[in-house]
Amino acid sequence: MAKKVVIVGGVAGGASTAARLRRVSEAAEIIMLEKGEHISFANCGLPYHIGEVIENREELLVQTPEAMQARFNIDVRIKHQAVEIDRETKNIKIKNLENGELYTESYDKLVLSSGADPIRPPLPGLDIEEVYTLRNIRDMDLIKNYLDNNRVEHAVVVGGGFIGLEMLENLHHRGLDVSLVELSDQVMRTLDKEMVSMVHNHMRTKGVDLNLSDGIAAVEKENDKKFVVLESGKRIETDLVILSIGVKPKTELAEKAGLEIGVTGGIKVNQYLETSDADIYAIGDAIEVKDFVSKEPSRIPLAGPANKQGRIAANNIMGKKEKYKGTQGTSIAKIFDIVPASTGAAEKDLKAKDFSYQVVHITANNHAGYYPGSQPMMLKLIYQKDEGRILGAQIVGFAGVDKRIDVLSTAIRHEMNIFDLQELELAYSPPFGSAKDPVNMLGFAAGNIYNGLVEPAFWQELAELDPEESILLDIREEIELELGQIDNSLHIPLNSLRDNLDKLDKNKEYITYCAVGLRGYIAARILMQNGFDKVRNLSGGYKLYKAVLD
Amino acid sequence: MAKKVVIVGGVAGGASTAARLRRVSEAAEIIMLEKGEHISFANCGLPYHIGEVIENREELLVQTPEAMQARFNIDVRIKHQAVEIDRETKNIKIKNLENGELYTESYDKLVLSSGADPIRPPLPGLDIEEVYTLRNIRDMDLIKNYLDNNRVEHAVVVGGGFIGLEMLENLHHRGLDVSLVELSDQVMRTLDKEMVSMVHNHMRTKGVDLNLSDGIAAVEKENDKKFVVLESGKRIETDLVILSIGVKPKTELAEKAGLEIGVTGGIKVNQYLETSDADIYAIGDAIEVKDFVSKEPSRIPLAGPANKQGRIAANNIMGKKEKYKGTQGTSIAKIFDIVPASTGAAEKDLKAKDFSYQVVHITANNHAGYYPGSQPMMLKLIYQKDEGRILGAQIVGFAGVDKRIDVLSTAIRHEMNIFDLQELELAYSPPFGSAKDPVNMLGFAAGNIYNGLVEPAFWQELAELDPEESILLDIREEIELELGQIDNSLHIPLNSLRDNLDKLDKNKEYITYCAVGLRGYIAARILMQNGFDKVRNLSGGYKLYKAVLD
Ligand SMILES: Cc1cc2nc3c(=O)[nH]c(=O)nc-3n(C[C@H](O)[C@H](O)[C@H](O)COP(=O)(O)OP(=O)(O)OC[C@H]3O[C@@H](n4cnc5c(N)ncnc54)[C@H](O)[C@@H]3O)c2cc1C
Ligand SMILES: Cc1cc2nc3c(=O)[nH]c(=O)nc-3n(C[C@H](O)[C@H](O)[C@H](O)COP(=O)(O)OP(=O)(O)OC[C@H]3O[C@@H](n4cnc5c(N)ncnc54)[C@H](O)[C@@H]3O)c2cc1C
Ligand SMILES: CC(C)(COP(=O)(O)OP(=O)(O)OC[C@H]1O[C@@H](n2cnc3c(N)ncnc32)[C@H](O)[C@@H]1OP(=O)(O)O)[C@@H](O)C(=O)NCCC(=O)NCCS
Ligand SMILES: CC(C)(COP(=O)(O)OP(=O)(O)OC[C@H]1O[C@@H](n2cnc3c(N)ncnc32)[C@H](O)[C@@H]1OP(=O)(O)O)[C@@H](O)C(=O)NCCC(=O)NCCS
Repeated sequence: MAKKVVIVGGVAGGASTAARLRRVSEAAEIIMLEKGEHISFANCGLPYHIGEVIENREELLVQTPEAMQARFNIDVRIKHQAVEIDRETKNIKIKNLENGELYTESYDKLVLSSGADPIRPPLPGLDIEEVYTLRNIRDMDLIKNYLDNNRVEHAVVVGGGFIGLEMLENLHHRGLDVSLVELSDQVMRTLDKEMVSMVHNHMRTKGVDLNLSDGIAAVEKENDKKFVVLESGKRIETDLVILSIGVKPKTELAEKAGLEIGVTGGIKVNQYLETSDADIYAIGDAIEVKDFVSKEPSRIPLAGPANKQGRIAANNIMGKKEKYKGTQGTSIAKIFDIVPASTGAAEKDLKAKDFSYQVVHITANNHAGYYPGSQPMMLKLIYQKDEGRILGAQIVGFAGVDKRIDVLSTAIRHEMNIFDLQELELAYSPPFGSAKDPVNMLGFAAGNIYNGLVEPAFWQELAELDPEESILLDIREEIELELGQIDNSLHIPLNSLRDNLDKLDKNKEYITYCAVGLRGYIAARILMQNGFDKVRNLSGGYKLYKAVLD
Repeated sequence: MAKKVVIVGGVAGGASTAARLRRVSEAAEIIMLEKGEHISFANCGLPYHIGEVIENREELLVQTPEAMQARFNIDVRIKHQAVEIDRETKNIKIKNLENGELYTESYDKLVLSSGADPIRPPLPGLDIEEVYTLRNIRDMDLIKNYLDNNRVEHAVVVGGGFIGLEMLENLHHRGLDVSLVELSDQVMRTLDKEMVSMVHNHMRTKGVDLNLSDGIAAVEKENDKKFVVLESGKRIETDLVILSIGVKPKTELAEKAGLEIGVTGGIKVNQYLETSDADIYAIGDAIEVKDFVSKEPSRIPLAGPANKQGRIAANNIMGKKEKYKGTQGTSIAKIFDIVPASTGAAEKDLKAKDFSYQVVHITANNHAGYYPGSQPMMLKLIYQKDEGRILGAQIVGFAGVDKRIDVLSTAIRHEMNIFDLQELELAYSPPFGSAKDPVNMLGFAAGNIYNGLVEPAFWQELAELDPEESILLDIREEIELELGQIDNSLHIPLNSLRDNLDKLDKNKEYITYCAVGLRGYIAARILMQNGFDKVRNLSGGYKLYKAVLD
């Protein structure tokens, strides 16, 4: 007999499940419940409509209930909320939000793709009209209406995750002055701090009032003035507050039904995306996933995984057994002109776990330097120290970042090591790349460390150096000194290093540095092969060091 | 004792070998011989300086002999030609081209990176001044001087490989009218014909006079008029002829020394890039490589492989044994606004070998359709039929082509299959991609064919269909018919298909089609599950079909 499948949630995960179910089976009975007014909308596009980058609101409505019905023969019920699951009898209680009526549907299989809610901390004053969160079309409409119909000159965005930063950019794009408040000492927590420094600096050059290491304490209203009060005591007068400090998985339904909840607070599922009840699947932002790299439970609320999980759940329901192997958290954002991206594990997480890893930083151009318009990007690779297996990658640049993070994400997914990166044959002609792509170059630089050709030093270590023991050797050209120098450096340009070796003391440690690390490496090689035993090359060079300090 | 290494050729492969050798060993004696005036120049940038896209000629000189000497302590000898190798005594005879003197250098290891020469067929009239080939700085200067100092209004480019097409674009960019002459029925032979059709059409819209399936027979000069005469008899009056019909590996030195030459005419090397003499390495355009996919001998003259081989040869010379595992031929070009790219095997090559493969075509946007500026690309995936292992990929589009070809190239290098593509977790935010990236989508579409959910039909088959047996079912919307239709199609819009099944004859074959293949697939699924046994979906849809026919 044909299966009856009920899906809770009609957007990324839910609608994808429904469409795939229908393609696999014409016979299945498919009911999709959505408590909101819209299904299949582009959550990820919401900030851009607020910012008037996407002008036409309709563009965001990828599917309407009518179209979904016509094409896929899905029984789409908007403004219908699932309120209770009776696992025993395999029934689900539903509330028609238009008339308040309660009714019941039976199911053979149930799919929960209920998403997540923006977190609203219980702080004083956050309940006023001018404090918004952004999750769906309704939220977007509210914010946009407020902007369109009021004199709004300043906004505070609370939370420096990618949604917060996209909102910041879009509000700035509309001409607002913007402040960002972020409790941690950096935005975008999937990247490590030194990589994000460049993003901080870029935002500052765009006029963003950046408040790091400071949290929101309250919102106060005085006459018609509004103030965001920070934990530090700082008061920011503003017209609009956007809260984007993270999301909480929507698990009420699952919890009430006694389904297992994971340690991270998401609904627990097995590799087939089945909950603790094999007739109930759960997907998307509501679930706990396995982190693909660490293999630990995690929550990674992203659209790519939600859509893919929807397809896999549909396949499993239809008996085409398929495993979901975990989420890497590959992500990217455009923040003004700068693009940070990451995939896999961050250094800080591995450090916290005392994992044995190694790091390399390089700077490379998006395409051949001699072809007009080339732009630099900084890449960081994190790999398992003994085997060289790649654990994580981070890139901050302007153009071509998305390409390299996707190649590195593919490398992680297939458990490649640093030597595999050396061999990748990536497309090269001058407008698109270099004969040695930045990804190859990461492999070369990492391979050299692995093979002991050079040892890296890191920006964090410089503050603790004993100047009696360790010499910072700046091997850049004379003219580059104008860009600044690390304190107490000895300056010998690379091309005269071989002629000046006798002026150096072989008993000391030398930390070579250039702008980005390439020439520092060559200098290190020269020293190491001329009787200097303690030599390291500053990873990322002066450029990275300076970015962190700025 | 320190090794003495002599390198023949000072550009892509040679200079890379020299630089890596020095970084590994300060002690080695390194002599780099280059018969031309320049070392380390950007071959790939030459067309763009002619086209004045790269304005400053110096940009192309990546390294000068002086700089290479200063930084890497390499004994660089420009205008010195290697003329003979005495393998017995391990000596190489060198001619100083400035004074004609001959002298000898001994070597421990010799590296041949002598490149290739443009082919000049022995046809009448090709020896006049106005017929050029392009390989090095000198060639570039000659062409550019001719353009700068003469009234040049029209050019003929002979050969539609990527260098020919880049020249075409650059001459057009300088304001010339351009004709292309290509013996085969398509340009860019690494792509299959249906994919290249879009490139042909794009070139025509740019005003290129495209002469396919026609070869050059002669060049004639009458008074001061010049004509390119084609095999068909067509005469094209022109001011300038660029010959780019391929290159011939420079193997004289190797041949004279009795080194083995491969079946393809390149110098034969083993996995360590050693020639048949273990003290002589050869790399770059001069060698025969193993095709990574077919495992057969091939010649693939590209800069990425040349540079990587240089590094590997250096490592092997220094005792850090490393294998070169073959070349995939990943390549890309920008031709006006369109970007064709490919990696791995083409369908035509597999067909010629009766290999068991399957093909899928899809069209996808470079980034979310709702974000401004999204552009479509056509992707073709070729995979091994039984195991699903990916053999080749081709993409033609405008933006984001380079990213997808690099991911697919990485997939081929690591012997991934079509299901692996489904799982790749690629970076998504609206300016950069989609929740289901085009690469995932290729995996989905191929997986459906593999699993028998749908069977594809191909454009080549349509001409041979028996209209009594097979019905072409156009399931597009009414409004799309304005774009044209395949002759003798039956039109039923997808959304009314379920209601019209009774009008269709279950004994006939149905070939469904939409614009690109997605809705055609949904239609095929509906039919297949409603008692229709013979159903196929037109791969690439009407768009691809039309591109081939235009
Ligand atoms: C502003 C914004 C920008 C984003 N940008 C990106 C990005 O650039 N890249 C990226 O990868 N991800 C992005 N995301 C995240 C991405 O949108 C989510 O990961 C994805 O939508 C999760 O899919 P889901 O199906 O789990 O939840 P949702 O898409 O949120 O769908 C859940 C639906 O379930 C409904 N529902 C919940 N409970 C019930 C119930 N009991 N009965 C009926 N219906 C119910 C909800 O109303 C909701 O519509 C963004 C998210 C937001 C909000
Ligand atoms: C116009 C043009 C555009 C290109 N665009 C691209 C592109 O976009 N992407 C890509 O991947 N590839 C491209 N290539 C190909 C790429 O440049 C070659 O694959 C690469 O340069 C090969 O390196 P090689 O060291 O083998 O040869 P070369 O770089 O040509 O170097 C060989 C050198 O050896 C010297 N030599 C030869 N014999 C002797 C001797 N007996 N004694 C002394 N010296 C000798 C020659 O003078 C020559 O300078 C392009 C090539 C050209 C010409
Ligand atoms: C709109 C929505 C319902 C579409 O779901 P979908 O139909 O599964 O997805 P697509 O329209 O991308 O189509 C994908 C299908 O087309 C097939 N396909 C695509 N191009 C094809 C082609 N040229 N030929 C054959 N098949 C093709 C794929 O194989 C896939 O089918 P499968 O899953 O059965 O293998 C769902 O994506 C959605 O709700 N999106 C909006 C919400 C959202 O995702 N938000 C977060 C991101 S902003
Ligand atoms: C100029 C030329 C000699 C440079 O060769 P090269 O020094 O090997 O190459 P690069 O300058 O890119 O440097 C690569 C080295 O820097 C290292 N490196 C790069 N960035 C680094 C960083 N930030 N930190 C540490 N090391 C770094 C790499 O590991 C690699 O060293 P390795 O090979 O010892 O591992 C050679 O590329 C050339 O002749 N190019 C022009 C000709 C040509 O290629 N033509 C065809 C294309 S147009």
